[in-house]
Amino acid sequence: MILITKSNNAAQKIANKLDDKNPIKPVFVHDNRVALAGVKSLDENILNEISQDIVEIITNHHQAIVSSRAFHPEDTIIKTKHAIIGGNNFVFMAGPDSIESSAHVLEMGRSVKAAGATILRGGAFKPRTSPYSFQGNGEVGLKAHRAAADVLEMDMVTEILDTKNVDLVDSYTDIFQVGTRNMQNFALLKALGQKRKPVVLKRGMSATIDDLLNAAEYIAAGGNTQIILMERGIRTYDNKYTRNTIDISAIPVLKSLTHYPVIADASHAAGVAKFVAPLALAATAAGAQGLMTEIHDDPEHAFVDGAQALTPSAFAKLADKIKKIHDIV
Amino acid sequence: MILITKSNNAAQKIANKLDDKNPIKPVFVHDNRVALAGVKSLDENILNEISQDIVEIITNHHQAIVSSRAFHPEDTIIKTKHAIIGGNNFVFMAGPDSIESSAHVLEMGRSVKAAGATILRGGAFKPRTSPYSFQGNGEVGLKAHRAAADVLEMDMVTEILDTKNVDLVDSYTDIFQVGTRNMQNFALLKALGQKRKPVVLKRGMSATIDDLLNAAEYIAAGGNTQIILMERGIRTYDNKYTRNTIDISAIPVLKSLTHYPVIADASHAAGVAKFVAPLALAATAAGAQGLMTEIHDDPEHAFVDGAQALTPSAFAKLADKIKKIHDIV
Amino acid sequence: MILITKSNNAAQKIANKLDDKNPIKPVFVHDNRVALAGVKSLDENILNEISQDIVEIITNHHQAIVSSRAFHPEDTIIKTKHAIIGGNNFVFMAGPDSIESSAHVLEMGRSVKAAGATILRGGAFKPRTSPYSFQGNGEVGLKAHRAAADVLEMDMVTEILDTKNVDLVDSYTDIFQVGTRNMQNFALLKALGQKRKPVVLKRGMSATIDDLLNAAEYIAAGGNTQIILMERGIRTYDNKYTRNTIDISAIPVLKSLTHYPVIADASHAAGVAKFVAPLALAATAAGAQGLMTEIHDDPEHAFVDGAQALTPSAFAKLADKIKKIHDIV
Amino acid sequence: MILITKSNNAAQKIANKLDDKNPIKPVFVHDNRVALAGVKSLDENILNEISQDIVEIITNHHQAIVSSRAFHPEDTIIKTKHAIIGGNNFVFMAGPDSIESSAHVLEMGRSVKAAGATILRGGAFKPRTSPYSFQGNGEVGLKAHRAAADVLEMDMVTEILDTKNVDLVDSYTDIFQVGTRNMQNFALLKALGQKRKPVVLKRGMSATIDDLLNAAEYIAAGGNTQIILMERGIRTYDNKYTRNTIDISAIPVLKSLTHYPVIADASHAAGVAKFVAPLALAATAAGAQGLMTEIHDDPEHAFVDGAQALTPSAFAKLADKIKKIHDIV
Repeated sequence: MILITKSNNAAQKIANKLDDKNPIKPVFVHDNRVALAGVKSLDENILNEISQDIVEIITNHHQAIVSSRAFHPEDTIIKTKHAIIGGNNFVFMAGPDSIESSAHVLEMGRSVKAAGATILRGGAFKPRTSPYSFQGNGEVGLKAHRAAADVLEMDMVTEILDTKNVDLVDSYTDIFQVGTRNMQNFALLKALGQKRKPVVLKRGMSATIDDLLNAAEYIAAGGNTQIILMERGIRTYDNKYTRNTIDISAIPVLKSLTHYPVIADASHAAGVAKFVAPLALAATAAGAQGLMTEIHDDPEHAFVDGAQALTPSAFAKLADKIKKIHDIV
Repeated sequence: MILITKSNNAAQKIANKLDDKNPIKPVFVHDNRVALAGVKSLDENILNEISQDIVEIITNHHQAIVSSRAFHPEDTIIKTKHAIIGGNNFVFMAGPDSIESSAHVLEMGRSVKAAGATILRGGAFKPRTSPYSFQGNGEVGLKAHRAAADVLEMDMVTEILDTKNVDLVDSYTDIFQVGTRNMQNFALLKALGQKRKPVVLKRGMSATIDDLLNAAEYIAAGGNTQIILMERGIRTYDNKYTRNTIDISAIPVLKSLTHYPVIADASHAAGVAKFVAPLALAATAAGAQGLMTEIHDDPEHAFVDGAQALTPSAFAKLADKIKKIHDIV
Repeated sequence: MILITKSNNAAQKIANKLDDKNPIKPVFVHDNRVALAGVKSLDENILNEISQDIVEIITNHHQAIVSSRAFHPEDTIIKTKHAIIGGNNFVFMAGPDSIESSAHVLEMGRSVKAAGATILRGGAFKPRTSPYSFQGNGEVGLKAHRAAADVLEMDMVTEILDTKNVDLVDSYTDIFQVGTRNMQNFALLKALGQKRKPVVLKRGMSATIDDLLNAAEYIAAGGNTQIILMERGIRTYDNKYTRNTIDISAIPVLKSLTHYPVIADASHAAGVAKFVAPLALAATAAGAQGLMTEIHDDPEHAFVDGAQALTPSAFAKLADKIKKIHDIV
Repeated sequence: MILITKSNNAAQKIANKLDDKNPIKPVFVHDNRVALAGVKSLDENILNEISQDIVEIITNHHQAIVSSRAFHPEDTIIKTKHAIIGGNNFVFMAGPDSIESSAHVLEMGRSVKAAGATILRGGAFKPRTSPYSFQGNGEVGLKAHRAAADVLEMDMVTEILDTKNVDLVDSYTDIFQVGTRNMQNFALLKALGQKRKPVVLKRGMSATIDDLLNAAEYIAAGGNTQIILMERGIRTYDNKYTRNTIDISAIPVLKSLTHYPVIADASHAAGVAKFVAPLALAATAAGAQGLMTEIHDDPEHAFVDGAQALTPSAFAKLADKIKKIHDIV
């Protein structure tokens, strides 16, 4: 249940009052709105106590109440040191799939920065389908990634796989990333809800829109609402020519349901470099507020997922077109 | 097997020679290329006879050999009375879902023409999930549709459901449309292969890319290669917020595999009007060469699928943005 | 809307009365029940006229009203010359995928009859993904199939692909089969609704349960309710080890929603012979009332789908286990 | 690469030799077989050194090498205190979805034991889609569960959600369970690979067969091969009448590829109690070696997933039929 009240003060006052009363909790406040998670109706006595401050009561909101537009009508804008994410802004997160070496991540970072990227992506802990595949360079990778981001004056985003590593990764990164296989790793989401750093949450391979919003809510319920949702392709019956099926409609649908920034990962969606550009352009035209893109100067020898990596020059050309399309839509 | 020969003449000569020899048939010729459907290897004697005219032999082509880029490298351009479809052209096919009346289709046609559409769509035979739903106005609808197209100097495209109606529909329409539920109605495809009019072939709800190309090949094998492929959304595990999941990657994938024009139907993909525009823009950005869009001036009272119809003015605004995006990609 | 009336006579009387009044039609009667397709409410005057004969009004029935258990609570039992289909009976339909020759279909029929099959399956018109694949032996196949069925005293079931062939196929077969690709070929379904012979309706590759029932309703609305529904595997994201994913739950779900017999095709579901038996046993345990199975004495040289054909002896062993399981469930 | 050697001794000798040589690792031994994960070919010098002890070299094995039948041809049989899992044995794991109280889990355990269950299931940590849903009773639940299992002389199986809780859960349970949402939580799988207790690994909602085997391999690579694979229904385009689509074919497919026991969870697959029994029977007929079933004496008031819980008496009836079917297949 969401209560729209007369003023921000009134909302805070009502929240304080209700938070006391079991079982009405948790209670969230945003401006003049009070969200009562999981509450379908209020006791008449309570309602009488607060009714003079209430303008409207919304009950047909999304189950992920903090994440819903009904609770937070305007776009969430996330400001990091080097980027503004959300609203009418467009953000490029780019870099190598895995951090291969200090020199390599720095070089890749330099090239994507030149093309307009402000956030340097890269993986130190890689979630691989097989235990015998390269699992990432671990803390050595985190260090190299951090150093490159500092030199280039970019933000760093990297994936976190394990609740046990949250503090370790936190000590290096600017933005956490939760991968598709962990979208419903609720222990991890709860741990990130205790942090006050942005989290990029990738949609699970077969997650519904509702699943994704509820996963975001695990983070938000802990008090961390710096959430960036990412469409990265879903699993369908046809993956002969692309690795996944990008669900372009998820972009406008999510933007209508939630206030968080919505970005896309065309690299994993396509799985092959030649289809990354059209998918990235499409995501932009559909209203994406940013893109995460994998690049590599020597795709054939990339440690991970070389087939889907753009070369730096292909990325620069793509970024150009994307800016133009973003201006139109 | 595809033989690239020294010249168009050589190709024709080889085709004539091979067509004689069972079981090598059917044989297709395009410029200096000869396609031998279903043939994996040639008898050595035959090969010796023709080898001096052969430049290259391609064996790793798509099963839908006539439809493949390997057989027909350049884009197919289809010219109708009022439209050019394929290549760098962009075509708008728009109109009401079903032909409701002569006056209505004329009015709708007038509005979409003003926005840039050259082909007037509309259904006289409607494939409805339930037998108790409105099944279309039949020949009365065809007549009204034809009259409106003539007055407006537009082409007419309409759906054909039954082999028994091929000649009837043929006597009215400029372009046939095969719907998603009939994509593998091979009897119908064969019948249309005998015509020499363009066919819009909609992808089946769960058709793979290969299924779609093989369905097109049923038409092409009959000698009709004026085929327009249409992505219209596939069936996935999530259809809570949109009717189907538009498979945007199908657009660049198809364009890489085949020479036929590839267009999109954002109306059926979205299923709700507010998501039609972002999907249409995305399809354009991904390289679609045209759009089919349903419009209605009074969506709430449309006979069929009103929820997904754009108003004429919304369509005009959308068409504007689409032209701009098409210029960029 | 379904009206439960006091007696079969009352139902007929009400039906006659309502059938007169537009737009209440079509009207269907079964025993003491009257089904008004597409009707949500009745005019008060009409209601008053008939209320004394009405025991109950059902409005939460399936859209496919004639097919619903609410209209026809008891199982439909279909009696052919050599088989009883539905209820507690179990029917084996077996035979080669395609009719290859008179001798072959006779031999295959003999072996499946010995194992308990009463219906001889076989295809004369084959719906193949590619136009260059073998398309079946046509009327020659129908003749051979009919002759074998007559000699063996079995019923014949064969697929129909085209409205133009309905009378031709009708002149040979005992039971029509509509394939998965034509499940929503509504013209074909309507044509079969005019016949008074059983129709095996295969579920479409990505048809929902509701789609399947609505497709059946196209046949039923024409007056032909001798319908047998068949689960044959759906399309999902994983088809590496089996051709399709058999949706076993469709069997109990359909049996709860409709009165028609529900059978399964484990051959197409599995796609490889070694998995046919476990799937067939599973379908039986889930409540299937019959099985359609492809057999071949020389699978490697079968004209079509040899990989999924059981040998006659494997079929005999399977049939034995199936009878035992059917006795338990 | 799998080397079949002359004897168990020879295998051990070769393994010792190869384990030394980078980058050939890890090396696994089972009887007279040596598995070299990720190795496609061996250096000629090495091959010469060991060739006299080698009978056969297998290279077309599954990527999940330890889990493959090629490495471990015979069924894995897991013996717990109260159960034998795998081979021709059939195991019932049953109990409430969540541990509600000491008295309740004891009562539920008593009823399922009477019906033949030897393993008591129950959740203390519940992975719920929404953060506002009941998250389980935590350690209090573990204690009650353990106590009930001890009193009843049953084994205890419970879900583990977080690497941080592995030791806590380990101190109570006999068998770990990894849920569908964590099937690719590789950190958790690695942690369980360090334990020497059985792990029930549920298939992810959209995991392929290969994904499931690779996930199992994360556990096996750590040295823990007491793995039980569980089919529990996948996500498809139709979930109107059941919660998931049970992939029955996964059972025989997995049994052909791997030596681990394969069981099924018909409760989550069905999602509604009335369809649990037919799905459970089907899974058994398809070759499942066990079933996990949720029961509740008062489904309407169950803390979690009451809709899919069988009553104790329904479970007893089902168990009876299952034993009979298991004897047939």
